[in-house]
Amino acid sequence: MGRRKNKIKLGAFLLFTGHHVAAWRHPQASVGTDFENYFELAKLAEAAKFDAIFFADGVAARLKDVEAASRKAHSGVYPFEPITLLSALSSVTRNIGLIATASTSFSDPYNLARQFGSLDRLSGGRAGWNLVTSSDQEAAYNFGHETRILHADRYERAEEFADVVLGLWDSWDDDAFIRDQAGGRYFDPEKLHRLNHKGRHFKVRGPLNIPRSPQGRPVLVQAGASGPGKELAARTAEAIFAAHITLEEAKAFYADVKGKLGAYGRSPDDLKILPGIFPVVGRSETEAQEKFEALQELIQPQVGLNLLSQLSGVDLSSYPLDGPIPSDLPVTNAGKSRQELVLDLARRENLTIRQLYLRTAGARGHWQVVGTPSQIADVMEERFENYGADGFNIMAPIMPGGLVDFIELVVPELRRRGLFRTEYEGTTLRENLGLKRPVNRFAAGTAAAAE
Amino acid sequence: MGRRKNKIKLGAFLLFTGHHVAAWRHPQASVGTDFENYFELAKLAEAAKFDAIFFADGVAARLKDVEAASRKAHSGVYPFEPITLLSALSSVTRNIGLIATASTSFSDPYNLARQFGSLDRLSGGRAGWNLVTSSDQEAAYNFGHETRILHADRYERAEEFADVVLGLWDSWDDDAFIRDQAGGRYFDPEKLHRLNHKGRHFKVRGPLNIPRSPQGRPVLVQAGASGPGKELAARTAEAIFAAHITLEEAKAFYADVKGKLGAYGRSPDDLKILPGIFPVVGRSETEAQEKFEALQELIQPQVGLNLLSQLSGVDLSSYPLDGPIPSDLPVTNAGKSRQELVLDLARRENLTIRQLYLRTAGARGHWQVVGTPSQIADVMEERFENYGADGFNIMAPIMPGGLVDFIELVVPELRRRGLFRTEYEGTTLRENLGLKRPVNRFAAGTAAAAE
Repeated sequence: MGRRKNKIKLGAFLLFTGHHVAAWRHPQASVGTDFENYFELAKLAEAAKFDAIFFADGVAARLKDVEAASRKAHSGVYPFEPITLLSALSSVTRNIGLIATASTSFSDPYNLARQFGSLDRLSGGRAGWNLVTSSDQEAAYNFGHETRILHADRYERAEEFADVVLGLWDSWDDDAFIRDQAGGRYFDPEKLHRLNHKGRHFKVRGPLNIPRSPQGRPVLVQAGASGPGKELAARTAEAIFAAHITLEEAKAFYADVKGKLGAYGRSPDDLKILPGIFPVVGRSETEAQEKFEALQELIQPQVGLNLLSQLSGVDLSSYPLDGPIPSDLPVTNAGKSRQELVLDLARRENLTIRQLYLRTAGARGHWQVVGTPSQIADVMEERFENYGADGFNIMAPIMPGGLVDFIELVVPELRRRGLFRTEYEGTTLRENLGLKRPVNRFAAGTAAAAE
Repeated sequence: MGRRKNKIKLGAFLLFTGHHVAAWRHPQASVGTDFENYFELAKLAEAAKFDAIFFADGVAARLKDVEAASRKAHSGVYPFEPITLLSALSSVTRNIGLIATASTSFSDPYNLARQFGSLDRLSGGRAGWNLVTSSDQEAAYNFGHETRILHADRYERAEEFADVVLGLWDSWDDDAFIRDQAGGRYFDPEKLHRLNHKGRHFKVRGPLNIPRSPQGRPVLVQAGASGPGKELAARTAEAIFAAHITLEEAKAFYADVKGKLGAYGRSPDDLKILPGIFPVVGRSETEAQEKFEALQELIQPQVGLNLLSQLSGVDLSSYPLDGPIPSDLPVTNAGKSRQELVLDLARRENLTIRQLYLRTAGARGHWQVVGTPSQIADVMEERFENYGADGFNIMAPIMPGGLVDFIELVVPELRRRGLFRTEYEGTTLRENLGLKRPVNRFAAGTAAAAE
C-alpha cells in the first residue's frame, strides 16, 4: 500500500494500576498511588518518545452501587486531580506533552483557560486540554444541580465554553510584555485584547490575566463521538481520542470527521485522530493470551456488571448472567454514542451478558488487541495506513508492566517499520504532533484582527 | 521580657520582580518570568528553612487605568496561576510549605477542594489555601456578573464555601483505601462519608473524589481584617496574613482574634498570626536607605497614584499631588478595612498625596522597615515577644536580591537570638507551623461522628 508520509503519534493514557478493571488485584500491579508512581510512568513514556501522556478525569465518585464500586480501583476516585498532577510532572519532564481532561459542564471558562495557559507556560509549551462534557448525575449533584444535564444542553454549553476559552487565550499578543525598564513601560496596551463575550451561558469580559502561552494556546483535544461532538471537534479540536473497535468503524469515523474540517476553513492535517488501543503484549501468542486471562480471572461479577451498566447506560443486573442481551433496551441520555458502540459489539458477536462484561470490562469498551509485538504492530500499521488513525492512545492493561511491555516490545517493531520517531521533532506538543502554532486572532496585521 | 517558648514562623511572599512597585525597573531586578525564576526563589526560601512560600492571586487584570497599568509589573497579570505553579514546585522541593491564594467569590468549592487536596497529596502534606473574597469589579465581569459583589454577600458566600470545602476534605477516613488485592476490596464503604450539604449558595452531595490528604486537610489561611473576616478566621483559619503597621495595631488585632477562638472551641495556638513585613536590608543604615531611595526614584507618578487609588479605594488623581489628603473621602465598598489602614497612616503623619503614594507604593500598604539586620531583627523580635505576631510573611522589595539580603543578613541574626529554626521540625506544613493534624469529623470513634 502507499505509505503515508507522516509517522504514528503515540499518547500514553495513564490510569493508575492500569486500564484493565481488575489490574489492581494482579500480583504484579503497582497499587501505589503516590506522585512517584506517576513520575515513573511519565519517565517511561518520555524515554520512549511518546508525544504525550494523558489523564482522564471526572468530578464525582461513581457510587450508585457502592458495593461494586468498593471492589474496583476505578470508581471515579482519582489519587490526584489531573491539572495539578500534570503541573507537578511539568517540572520533572522535558519533552513529553501533558494532556488533562476537564469538563465544560462543571468548570468555569476563565479559571480553566487560565490554569491550562499556566500549564502551557510551566511546561514550555507542552499542555493539552481534553474537553469533555459530563452526563454524570453524581457529578451534577456535586455542583448544585438537581439532576443530570441533558445532552443537547451540555453541547450547547460546551460550544460556547470552547469559544470563550479560545478567545481568552488570545487576550495578549505574543510580544505584548515588552518590559522596557528605562522607558517604564511593562506591556504595550495596543497588544491587549478584551474578549467582551456575551452569550447564553457566559458573560466574560477578559482579558485573561496571564500572558499568551508558548504554543499560542494549549492543544485542544476532544473525544465526543456523537453528532454534536463531531461538529464541535471538526470546528475546534486538534486531536480526537476516538473509541472505535473495527477498522471499518475507524475509517468511517476518520473520513467523516476529516471531511467536515473544510467547512470550518481547516485542513485535514489540523486535527489528529488517535484511537485508544488496549494492547496485551506477549512474546508469543500463548504468552499474550495467558497474560490476558490472568487479568480476566480477577474480575469480580458485580464489578463486571456494574462497569457494563456504566458503559452501556443500562442496568443489566436483573437479567441472567449467561443469557443474551435483551433486545428492547431503551436508549438513555448517558452517552448515547457509547451505548451504541457497546451494544453493536454484543449483537455482532451474539454475546451473553457475562461474555459482554468480560469483553468490555477488560478494555472498558475500547479496542483490545491480544498478541505478539508483530501482530500488534500489524493492526496499528493497518489502521494507520488505511486512514483509520493518525496515531494511537495506548491504554496499558496493567501499570507499569503493560506500558513497559508496549515500549520494550512494540515500539521497536514500529521503529523497524519506519512508523515511529526515534527522537522528538520539536520542543512543544504542537511541534511533535505536527500541528500549526495558531496566530492570535486579534494581533495587528492578521486578517481576522478585530480590535 | 519573658521569652515566648515558640519560635518565629517565616513565610516568603513571592511576587515576581519584588514587592516594590517599581522593582521591575531596577537594574538588579530579575524581570524573568519563567518557571526557573520561581524555582530559584523557592530553593532560596527552602534552604533558609522558611515555613512556606506564598503566592497572592486575582482573577482579572486591573486595567481601569490602562496607561498606569501598562507602566507596572503588578497589574493583576501573573506569569502563572498559583495552584499550577505550586504544583510544579511541589515535585522539585522537599520541605517548604506551598500556600496559594484562591477566591471564594469566583471558584467552585468542589473543584477547589479537590485541587488543594491534590496539591497536599503531591507535596506530601505541604499545601495551604489562602481563602480570599473578591471585591474586584473587573474580576466580576470575567464571571458573568454585571457589577462587583457586595461585602456582606461575599462573606456570606465565603462562610458557606469554607464549610463545604472543609466538609469535603473529610469525605474519606485516612485509612479508607485498604486495597485488599486477595479479598477484592479496594476501599471500605464504612469509611466513606457524603457531605449532603444544602445551603443558600451551594448544594454539594460529595464525597470528594480524592483520598484524604497527608495533612488531613491543607492549612487554611486568611487575610481578612474586616469584622466578618475576623469572625470567619477565628472560626476556621489556621494562619492569618495580617497587614498592620504599628505595634499597637498589631497587638490589638492579635489579642482580638486570638480572644475570639475560645467561642469556637479553639485554643490560641490553633491559629498563627503572620503580619507582612517589607524589609529593606542594608549592612549600614545608609546602605539600607540608599537601596530604598533607588527603588523610590523609579516610581512613575501615574503608577503611584493608581496604586494609591487601588489601596484606598478612592481616586485621588484629580487633587493636587503636593496637597493634603481630602478629609471628606467617601467610604467605598472596595476593602473598607484596607482603606482605613491607609488613610489612618496619612492622617497620623500629615502626608501629602505624593508623600502618601511614595510611602504606600513601596510596601503597598504593608509594614515597611528600612534598616540594618540588627534593627530589622529588633522590630521583629519586639512584635513577636509582645504578642503582635507569631511570625512574619517576608515581602522582599526586589527579587531575588531582597530575599537574598533577608536570608543572608537577617535570618542569621534571628538565629543568633534563638528566634528562628536551623532545621525543619517536621515534614508537613502543619508540623512546621506547630498546628494539629485535624481529626476527620466523620471518622468512626470520634465524638463528632455523624454517619
